[in-house]
Amino acid sequence: MKLVTAVIKPFKLDEVRAALLAFGVQGMTVSESSGYGRQRGHTEVYRGAEYTVELLPKVRLEILVDDEDSDDVVDVIVRAARTGKIGDGKVWTSTVENVVRVRTGEKGPEAL
Amino acid sequence: MKLVTAVIKPFKLDEVRAALLAFGVQGMTVSESSGYGRQRGHTEVYRGAEYTVELLPKVRLEILVDDEDSDDVVDVIVRAARTGKIGDGKVWTSTVENVVRVRTGEKGPEAL
Amino acid sequence: MKLVTAVIKPFKLDEVRAALLAFGVQGMTVSESSGYGRQRGHTEVYRGAEYTVELLPKVRLEILVDDEDSDDVVDVIVRAARTGKIGDGKVWTSTVENVVRVRTGEKGPEAL
Ligand SMILES: Nc1ncnc2c1ncn2[C@@H]1O[C@H](COP(=O)(O)OP(=O)(O)OP(=O)(O)O)[C@@H](O)[C@H]1O
Ligand SMILES: Nc1ncnc2c1ncn2[C@@H]1O[C@H](COP(=O)(O)OP(=O)(O)OP(=O)(O)O)[C@@H](O)[C@H]1O
Ligand SMILES: Nc1ncnc2c1ncn2[C@@H]1O[C@H](COP(=O)(O)OP(=O)(O)OP(=O)(O)O)[C@@H](O)[C@H]1O
Ligand SMILES: [Mg+2]
Ligand SMILES: [Mg+2]
Ligand SMILES: [Mg+2]
Repeated sequence: MKLVTAVIKPFKLDEVRAALLAFGVQGMTVSESSGYGRQRGHTEVYRGAEYTVELLPKVRLEILVDDEDSDDVVDVIVRAARTGKIGDGKVWTSTVENVVRVRTGEKGPEAL
Repeated sequence: MKLVTAVIKPFKLDEVRAALLAFGVQGMTVSESSGYGRQRGHTEVYRGAEYTVELLPKVRLEILVDDEDSDDVVDVIVRAARTGKIGDGKVWTSTVENVVRVRTGEKGPEAL
Repeated sequence: MKLVTAVIKPFKLDEVRAALLAFGVQGMTVSESSGYGRQRGHTEVYRGAEYTVELLPKVRLEILVDDEDSDDVVDVIVRAARTGKIGDGKVWTSTVENVVRVRTGEKGPEAL
């Protein structure tokens, strides 16, 4: 299985969630977070020389998926989360060795 | 080393924490989160056709463990977190390449 | 690519962030969390025998980096986060298979 993690703009959460449901994703975990990227959170340049690094509010999503779905799930998120403006976010994928569904004790892909 | 991540019902946190301590787990990181699973957070059916996807409050746990403990730690969490009702959560395991204990600089299993 | 995750003392966030910027890290995601380590969050011993396990406030950082930077980034965090007192935190590293920059669709190291 794979874990797809996405850090996106908070106002995009509903759109991304709807796109994931339409794709057939079975579940999702959401956390509030904040962060900066290459622009270091700059929202304005103050007196040219001075700058601050701002941690801007973001939403962090985690989605456990079958191996064969992970590329599609990444694409679904990227398309739904994109505004074309800076700060749209990052999506990354890693390998998960085992998943258990707590209520039933099922393991592996059946646990998703 | 392994990282065991668990998303559970918030009221189960104390029970899971006690079970992990009894097992001998050395530490844990806890974050508030929310999410949905296969029932999409439905708590009631409204007029049959209409439904909303609710993000229900969950607690997210991360536990760094030795390789040989990871299956047991997953079992401990699953048993303590289970109510038998929908929404009990997911537990997953992934590989961690290195861990450092900040105060001492120890690395690897000694850092846990 | 690698994902470096760090759980540190909240008052150390600014120092760690400055050290990472000075190193040249391109971005970071921050979440509030809490946790305990080997001392189980003890802040005082109460009547000798009795103890509670406290979840103390921590900050959780995630930093996506190139493979060749991950050891240095861990070192930068460890040095900046260290106070020498208990509870300074943990830093761990795992492998990330793919990263996408949402705005541009870039993938891999270019997406960082
Ligand atoms: N290297 C990184 N490691 C971890 N999280 C990151 C990293 N870079 C960005 N993020 C997270 O993604 C959020 C959005 O980043 P952002 O989209 O600004 O990246 P960017 O590379 O600067 O792209 P853009 O040029 O489109 O703004 C940040 O607030 C942060 O939470
Ligand atoms: N595929 C998934 N990816 C990431 N997180 C998930 C996923 N599925 C569930 N979760 C997380 O686990 C929480 C609980 O899920 P839940 O126990 O309802 O899963 P389920 O498969 O629907 O099982 P059940 O039928 O017992 O309810 C969700 O609120 C969400 O935070
Ligand atoms: N095994 C672990 N798994 C996950 N998170 C951990 C683990 N151990 C510690 N942490 C996280 O790191 C934070 C700080 O831990 P801490 O620095 O106290 O570790 P420690 O091993 O007890 O080291 P020290 O002896 O220096 O206190 C905890 O509050 C928790 O969030
Ligand atoms: Mg940016
Ligand atoms: Mg469910
Ligand atoms: Mg400690």
